[in-house]
Amino acid sequence: MKVGVIGLGLIGGSFAMEMKRQRHEVIGSDKNSAHALKAKELKIVDDVMDNHQLIAACDFIVLATPVQAIARLLPEVLDKIGEQQLVIDLGSTKAKIVNEVEKHPMRRRYLACHPMAGTEFSGPEAAVANLFRDAFMVICNREDTDADAVEKLESLFLAMGMKITTYTAEAHDRHAAYISHISHISSFALALTVLDKEKNEEDIFKLAAGGFTSTVRLAKSAAETWTPIFSENRERVLDVLDAHMKHLADFKKAIDENDQTALNNLIHSANRINKIV
Amino acid sequence: MKVGVIGLGLIGGSFAMEMKRQRHEVIGSDKNSAHALKAKELKIVDDVMDNHQLIAACDFIVLATPVQAIARLLPEVLDKIGEQQLVIDLGSTKAKIVNEVEKHPMRRRYLACHPMAGTEFSGPEAAVANLFRDAFMVICNREDTDADAVEKLESLFLAMGMKITTYTAEAHDRHAAYISHISHISSFALALTVLDKEKNEEDIFKLAAGGFTSTVRLAKSAAETWTPIFSENRERVLDVLDAHMKHLADFKKAIDENDQTALNNLIHSANRINKIV
Repeated sequence: MKVGVIGLGLIGGSFAMEMKRQRHEVIGSDKNSAHALKAKELKIVDDVMDNHQLIAACDFIVLATPVQAIARLLPEVLDKIGEQQLVIDLGSTKAKIVNEVEKHPMRRRYLACHPMAGTEFSGPEAAVANLFRDAFMVICNREDTDADAVEKLESLFLAMGMKITTYTAEAHDRHAAYISHISHISSFALALTVLDKEKNEEDIFKLAAGGFTSTVRLAKSAAETWTPIFSENRERVLDVLDAHMKHLADFKKAIDENDQTALNNLIHSANRINKIV
Repeated sequence: MKVGVIGLGLIGGSFAMEMKRQRHEVIGSDKNSAHALKAKELKIVDDVMDNHQLIAACDFIVLATPVQAIARLLPEVLDKIGEQQLVIDLGSTKAKIVNEVEKHPMRRRYLACHPMAGTEFSGPEAAVANLFRDAFMVICNREDTDADAVEKLESLFLAMGMKITTYTAEAHDRHAAYISHISHISSFALALTVLDKEKNEEDIFKLAAGGFTSTVRLAKSAAETWTPIFSENRERVLDVLDAHMKHLADFKKAIDENDQTALNNLIHSANRINKIV
């Protein structure tokens, strides 16, 4: 199979590496030509082409750009493919993307996917082998895709060591906001807080134990990826952000009133996360 | 040297393990008798005693209980020691503890310490070898301790592979609030948010990638440890919590107004943490 990956960053690059490991020929494209060349140099892809050539040449086309670009590119890709080609996207939001192609005559050759894996790094140099191993691949609106395409793609994901789960695009976006998107905002805001309060970076360096490093890790994530996600999933992100600010206000009240019983209760309730992750 | 460790949880237990590795005899005590027995069973300590016996028997006494208990125990320990004995505490707040013994005749045999290391786990089973390796040991109000005691203790910490830095107790507590304490509140509140919004734990389990797990890790931390820390460092924690809520409000405003330039700027500013940790 000839696989075309559009967007050769962390996610697209890691997916390309996995396709090469499975002995598929992999063509890449990236609107950042330095990224495309770097991906070829790192042997993440076998060759690079422009999108038009790539779409014509590949059996299986993977969109792994920022989500706003996916929403723009997907209809163009579906306009150009034939009945034997397959398209997926790997974006972190799904509702707006699937809505863009809801009525497209080739909709059934496209499967909306979101691999629940990543790191805080970006660009082709951030691509890593086995990024997707043991992670869930969320498949959205599965019934809107041809059964043969779904079957083939699910086999491919299983061969990558992934687990498969299905949601509607709407439910996916809600859960992604509640878990992944709020984690990123929380971490970005924590970094801003510490950089704001600590004028001397040396103090942060000395006093940052593993706990701080872990909590602030996602704050290193790329604006190019995350601004479009927060924008596309706006209502759901605002909903969970309000809830998060309310829980912080509960902490503030308990600390302000030195109500140690309330603080204990809040921490014990938060500790329930220990049973899940 | 005979070392006595009062409080055999994550920090005290790990410190005891390190003392045993350095071939010192280690006596432990814990007001939770199950923890004391478990620490002996795990060979974290050579023997367990009550505090009175431990203080009489040991050359070097380490207080590693929750911080409110340290503030209560430290004057009692200093009442009982002789001129050749040394005392340290390993608490995460310092100002209230050093104020408690400011005028004590044995103040100079005590050194206020805070190792910048830990995990989200607690109790003697959470104790790990090498927890302190490569971490900073913060020493507070160093000039209030006898020079011979400081010299001896610093050699001990260096032999543990630690780096040493000094702050006033006030400055320590401010920096600890700005970096460590706010990270814990942020993570506790994130866990509460996710548990509040996600009624089905299965969804959290499936959709939690490494990023969420990293950000929520500290939410597993013990209330017994953290309620006293937030209480003792109340004013400084409230100050940084206000700043944190303001930065979250900035995100909320940018998302609400779909101001992608503002969002990009916020994320780029947060990304500066990448150069520090």
